Amino acid sequence: MATALPLLNAEPDAAACGRPVPAEALSDTRAAELATALKALADPTRLRLMSIVAASPDGEACACDLTEPVGLSQPTVSHHLKVLTAAGFLTRTKRGTWAYFRVTPGAVDRIAALLPR
Amino acid sequence: MATALPLLNAEPDAAACGRPVPAEALSDTRAAELATALKALADPTRLRLMSIVAASPDGEACACDLTEPVGLSQPTVSHHLKVLTAAGFLTRTKRGTWAYFRVTPGAVDRIAALLPR
Repeated sequence: MATALPLLNAEPDAAACGRPVPAEALSDTRAAELATALKALADPTRLRLMSIVAASPDGEACACDLTEPVGLSQPTVSHHLKVLTAAGFLTRTKRGTWAYFRVTPGAVDRIAALLPR
Repeated sequence: MATALPLLNAEPDAAACGRPVPAEALSDTRAAELATALKALADPTRLRLMSIVAASPDGEACACDLTEPVGLSQPTVSHHLKVLTAAGFLTRTKRGTWAYFRVTPGAVDRIAALLPR
């Protein structure tokens, strides 16, 4: 995933300052995907939820344990957990009444590796 | 910057499912700072601009070369460049008529290192 960024297909613009777009730049498609993933992370509550799950002793946290530390209602916390799960940053397992969450191994690293630097 | 995340000061909630908040979780303050930085990155145009600057032959790009590849007006591109510069991801140098941009060394890595994983 983190290799071989697609070539940018913009034409060099001889009428502008004269420097063509570097071939290694992110494509429109890749930039849009990356922005979507970053938007899922770019929320203080979601970052706190991710960090609480990540720091849980066995790497797993019950949804029932996640409302109190962030001080929000269960529906609001469920929404944030759903956004993180849909983006691939958390994985969800249902056991009995409750859903349990883990940080998806490598997901953050794959996004981080794609960031321009 | 990427070390010693502040301890979370929430009290363990004995009435909930019984698991206290892990001490290594992101604090509210740190999560808010991180979310602000990620929001600056979480935009397709800004990611493309960053990647074009990063991939420029000498690591520097003139603002005059950045409008055409993203297909947006100079004021719009200037706005995006200002957001990235304010967030510390780009550094700006004025020479003559034009401003030149470089990716700030280590800025993306510092943010990436703080992400929960």
